Amino acid sequence: MTSPFAPTEFPPIPPIEGVRFATGAAGIRYKERTDVMLALFDKGTQVAGVFTKSKCPSAPVDWCRTKLKGGKARTLVVNSGNANAFTGRTGTEAVKFTAALAAKATAAPASEIFLASTGVIGEPLDASKFDGVLDRLAEAASPDGMLEAAKAIMTTDTYPKVAFAKAEIGGVEVTIAGMAKGAGMIAPDMATMLAFLFTDAPIDAEALQTLLGKAVQVSFNAITIDSDTSTSDTLLLFATGAAKKRGVPRIAEASDRRIASFKQALQNVCLDLAHQIVKDGEGARKFVEITVEGAASSGAAKRIALSIANSPLVKTAIAGEDANWGRIVMAIGKAGEKAERDKLAIWFGNIRVAHKGLRDPKYDEAEVSAIMRKPEIRIQVDLGLGRGKATVWTCDLTKEYVAINGDYRS
Amino acid sequence: MTSPFAPTEFPPIPPIEGVRFATGAAGIRYKERTDVMLALFDKGTQVAGVFTKSKCPSAPVDWCRTKLKGGKARTLVVNSGNANAFTGRTGTEAVKFTAALAAKATAAPASEIFLASTGVIGEPLDASKFDGVLDRLAEAASPDGMLEAAKAIMTTDTYPKVAFAKAEIGGVEVTIAGMAKGAGMIAPDMATMLAFLFTDAPIDAEALQTLLGKAVQVSFNAITIDSDTSTSDTLLLFATGAAKKRGVPRIAEASDRRIASFKQALQNVCLDLAHQIVKDGEGARKFVEITVEGAASSGAAKRIALSIANSPLVKTAIAGEDANWGRIVMAIGKAGEKAERDKLAIWFGNIRVAHKGLRDPKYDEAEVSAIMRKPEIRIQVDLGLGRGKATVWTCDLTKEYVAINGDYRS
Repeated sequence: MTSPFAPTEFPPIPPIEGVRFATGAAGIRYKERTDVMLALFDKGTQVAGVFTKSKCPSAPVDWCRTKLKGGKARTLVVNSGNANAFTGRTGTEAVKFTAALAAKATAAPASEIFLASTGVIGEPLDASKFDGVLDRLAEAASPDGMLEAAKAIMTTDTYPKVAFAKAEIGGVEVTIAGMAKGAGMIAPDMATMLAFLFTDAPIDAEALQTLLGKAVQVSFNAITIDSDTSTSDTLLLFATGAAKKRGVPRIAEASDRRIASFKQALQNVCLDLAHQIVKDGEGARKFVEITVEGAASSGAAKRIALSIANSPLVKTAIAGEDANWGRIVMAIGKAGEKAERDKLAIWFGNIRVAHKGLRDPKYDEAEVSAIMRKPEIRIQVDLGLGRGKATVWTCDLTKEYVAINGDYRS
Repeated sequence: MTSPFAPTEFPPIPPIEGVRFATGAAGIRYKERTDVMLALFDKGTQVAGVFTKSKCPSAPVDWCRTKLKGGKARTLVVNSGNANAFTGRTGTEAVKFTAALAAKATAAPASEIFLASTGVIGEPLDASKFDGVLDRLAEAASPDGMLEAAKAIMTTDTYPKVAFAKAEIGGVEVTIAGMAKGAGMIAPDMATMLAFLFTDAPIDAEALQTLLGKAVQVSFNAITIDSDTSTSDTLLLFATGAAKKRGVPRIAEASDRRIASFKQALQNVCLDLAHQIVKDGEGARKFVEITVEGAASSGAAKRIALSIANSPLVKTAIAGEDANWGRIVMAIGKAGEKAERDKLAIWFGNIRVAHKGLRDPKYDEAEVSAIMRKPEIRIQVDLGLGRGKATVWTCDLTKEYVAINGDYRS
């Protein structure tokens, strides 16, 4: 079933100078759809990346972590249908073979090739299926094609996810555009999430890494669908530097004041994609924003917000359009962070339902019910203890989530 | 829908000398069923207890924690339908009022009265409904009645949970019997779980507390249904000491060698009740035992086992009878404990499906599928790193769980 949040039309994503895309069908798992995408970058493209914190990462994640040290990228190959995770030596061989095919097809050194795979875990990936396909894609690659690329990397996603923003550096316009895929096994740090961002801004790899790390904290690392962390999470940001020709100064330091607008644009694109992932969470019918303030620290606020966002009882109550704030209290209580019942206040939308340790006598159940029937729901908690604040996003837990995940593989 | 594990008949629970039960209908929330149970203990009864680690505990939990310091109990009052949690000063007043009514009805000091409540959170509990009821119950109390008492404390449970075991101390027989209720918001430390154990063994409160703490670790604290921790979890163990008359020596120390058999019996009763809770987990169709061995420590083994047990993706796969061991790998990876992909082995039942970092080439999908269709499923993980080992129990995550929790309150 398509997400109720699926966009009816997509924004026309502007091409990023120095980036070309192509997609094809390698028959990895799916029939009659594209399942491999290739992105080509001009020489000198800088790259930054953030990966899953899983102790059992996929073979492509291991590969990218190593290559990232060089800071340069020429080629990105992504396939859907098979995650090449927990595939042992076979998986490492598959990654090497894919990189060799990509190197040959795109005339790039293997050290500048980045790979990502998403789909079933534990099944060997037959990389020979890429043979020939990558050559054809390298020839066909064109600057327009981000949306098609976003479609090729989908698994249980019900719509492709793209976003872009404009910024200026030194008074000259630059563009950031990107794509992402979800849609289950999504939790902070990161998620079965692949996201690829592209910019023409000339920013060195080290600075780029710092900027990306910061943007991720309040976007991709502030969403959760089901608390499960994937073996394959990969977020890569490629900066071609093509805007230098138009007079944009080269940026070597993340602290450079000239990139304030770029930083904001990067965060906006990350947040836009992160929200799209949540809205397309498996079986999701509701998009939920949870803000916790008044916590002892911002870290405590985020842990409490995530405890609420990950609670099956909170999520099923939201699916049932039930303003069950007792379960919010439960989730606050189990987070392990400082909380005092008699100082707590809880809002659904703009209606305060609990105050100073008990039900707010003034709230009207009918008004709260009206809020719960909306597709987007805001929950706010004030712990009344300190100044720590954090916002996270999640979706509801529905029967469709169970159905999707009860027979995904079989 | 009744759990497929619901017993068709219940074991006849032997009376515990010094304990009497009565149940009644106070009309707290449910109609046409009992919702309050009273247990009366002979003078000198010793008590031990373990409670939720929630930072927002219910008013009765606060009450019991204080009274537990005295180590003595005469009366236990438990109601279902309302948890009296997050009810602020009103909740504290309700607890005091209930205790006063119970003190009057049972001629016991308020300091020896224990209370527990389970049900909706955040709604004021009208304790005046106990007025009169407790007097009638005190008069009617009788040694037989454990099963009826277990029925009165049910919420979304589909069957009452009772268990007992015999032991010997100094060559003389003693009995431990108990009851529990689940069935959602169940996670270790503890769960929306109420459990009450009774024994005629003469064991001092302090020793009793040590014994209970140990038994809980491998039973009630090794089960999880949905990772949600309740505000109300209460486990109380009452020792009347009546067996002293039959020649059982008084036990003052938990290290006393004469209670080896008692310790084992206590653990057996705890484990029996804990398993019953899991088997009656909301919407549960499968009972799952997860053993992790070869971990760096037993703590690490338990955290990894719980990560598997709490993963929505693992639980939905089990609901779908899908031997999706890739999700087991995912859950191991996200646990944050040391794990090496290339040393991992995973079994469903007695079939090894993964070995040394990849799919076991020898396993037969049909055989594994047959295992997955069974109501009880054993998952075993060997991390190949050390000697740490732990076992936990959980159930699957079904559409019924979502249905039950999507309109429990409304």
